[in-house]
Amino acid sequence: MKVQYLFEVLGTAFFAISGALAANRKSTPDWFGVTFIGFITAIGGGSLRDVLLGCYPIVWVKDVYFIYAILGGTVLASVFYTTLQKLRKTLFLFDTLGIALFTIVGTEKALSLGAGPETAAIMGMFSAVMGGVIRDILTHEIPIIFHKEIYATACLAGALLYLTLHYFHVSRNLNFWLSGSVIVTIRIMAVRYNLSLPKFRKESVTSTI
Amino acid sequence: MKVQYLFEVLGTAFFAISGALAANRKSTPDWFGVTFIGFITAIGGGSLRDVLLGCYPIVWVKDVYFIYAILGGTVLASVFYTTLQKLRKTLFLFDTLGIALFTIVGTEKALSLGAGPETAAIMGMFSAVMGGVIRDILTHEIPIIFHKEIYATACLAGALLYLTLHYFHVSRNLNFWLSGSVIVTIRIMAVRYNLSLPKFRKESVTSTI
Amino acid sequence: MKVQYLFEVLGTAFFAISGALAANRKSTPDWFGVTFIGFITAIGGGSLRDVLLGCYPIVWVKDVYFIYAILGGTVLASVFYTTLQKLRKTLFLFDTLGIALFTIVGTEKALSLGAGPETAAIMGMFSAVMGGVIRDILTHEIPIIFHKEIYATACLAGALLYLTLHYFHVSRNLNFWLSGSVIVTIRIMAVRYNLSLPKFRKESVTSTI
Repeated sequence: MKVQYLFEVLGTAFFAISGALAANRKSTPDWFGVTFIGFITAIGGGSLRDVLLGCYPIVWVKDVYFIYAILGGTVLASVFYTTLQKLRKTLFLFDTLGIALFTIVGTEKALSLGAGPETAAIMGMFSAVMGGVIRDILTHEIPIIFHKEIYATACLAGALLYLTLHYFHVSRNLNFWLSGSVIVTIRIMAVRYNLSLPKFRKESVTSTI
Repeated sequence: MKVQYLFEVLGTAFFAISGALAANRKSTPDWFGVTFIGFITAIGGGSLRDVLLGCYPIVWVKDVYFIYAILGGTVLASVFYTTLQKLRKTLFLFDTLGIALFTIVGTEKALSLGAGPETAAIMGMFSAVMGGVIRDILTHEIPIIFHKEIYATACLAGALLYLTLHYFHVSRNLNFWLSGSVIVTIRIMAVRYNLSLPKFRKESVTSTI
Repeated sequence: MKVQYLFEVLGTAFFAISGALAANRKSTPDWFGVTFIGFITAIGGGSLRDVLLGCYPIVWVKDVYFIYAILGGTVLASVFYTTLQKLRKTLFLFDTLGIALFTIVGTEKALSLGAGPETAAIMGMFSAVMGGVIRDILTHEIPIIFHKEIYATACLAGALLYLTLHYFHVSRNLNFWLSGSVIVTIRIMAVRYNLSLPKFRKESVTSTI
């Protein structure tokens, strides 16, 4: 589990970098605002999962290293700002690895707390994407998960695969790598070939409800 | 309680339908986005109530049928999309029955957990309306409860009546139907006669706070 | 602690007044909408802190006087609306006293629940500013803490001072007044001399993440 813990801290730092860069995109917030949004992006998903599951203390209250990882990520985002701009493909890869990791970790945590598989899949996806949703709300963006190439759906697919393999007693580590790889693969294919889910319905509707 | 449980599951499905239709109104989200917003609309109010009261496991983690009701509602919303457009009055009635039911259920749950009547009334109203508020935030709408004909106020009035009758030991079932009917009646009258609460103050103000 | 309790109730009422005035600034909500936003502004920060810490019952569920303080604040905001418009400096002072008080109270509460100092500082700041952030989201404003003169940063500085003095066993009451005064002083200086934190980075960036 030691390697995985390192991954989780690094994943948190990376989400903070991605949040800090996103915060800077629209307005010109000060250092505090950027750090704040980086923080919310990084811990939003895990906090929501833990609060919905009633799992206390929640992740960053229990382990202060997550807070330092976020502060470190924000500082890095500022110092290497220009360089990071040029590394979009690297950033994309990190983000993809991050959501894959957080999905599996969130799914496992929900299972270990006695949640059913349906709930565990939702909690896994929430862990990965809800930090970004809250960030988008704070910065007045339409949450990307509603209009972007397959994103949260990739997480959900990975979580469902994990739960299926778990049901058939596939060993945990093999399952971790298989399900995580599926998320990464789906996400890369979606961006590469510009895939998206079918639209719901196009016609607009005005309702009194 | 069996009939009421059926009502609750149906009410959840209906809120999911209403959320899915609302999600489709503004942008053209994909299937995932619509299901996601339907889900949040349906479980947002009850989840917030349970988290604020510290009542774990929260409603849809405890009972997975609520998740299936939401998925079913979203599929129905897509398959019968055109038909549902023409059924606005029916939809309005279902929504009204839904908020009435959720208000009373939420008020009762808060009371049963030892909350005072003031808190119970607020929790009842939250159960009914906060899913819609979160949906409006996610889809970038000004939450309807701020500008629409009497909506949350009807829930609050019903909750207060329930608490008053409860205080005078009116039997639970009679109380349930009486208070629920008051919510439905107020809401129907408000829409029918275009009633709204008095405005607060009209002058705009710029403040440094 | 009796004086402090009185302060907390008054601080809550004041946040409700500030929320009610803010709600009225942009649109023309009805009485319900204004009370609702006043309520969220006043209890949002403390509720989020208590939920994140798993401290149940949360503050306004435990003590119903906070609910009455909010209702009183909203009524006052309406009755003395024109007068309050002219009292901007007084309102600013009250707001500043409010965030100072809530920061220290929130920091102390987190510490008393066993949180580490890093978490306690964040919880103290959340108590003071998150009600306003939620209010801004509901009323479709970019949260002020991202673009305004030093605001949340003043809270964070005060919380960190409190934690430092606490570490060196400075007596609680002295610490309370010293740390609170620092928040008030920083905030007044920031507005008076129009100070703000350095911007993060100005160049805009379009990223695929």
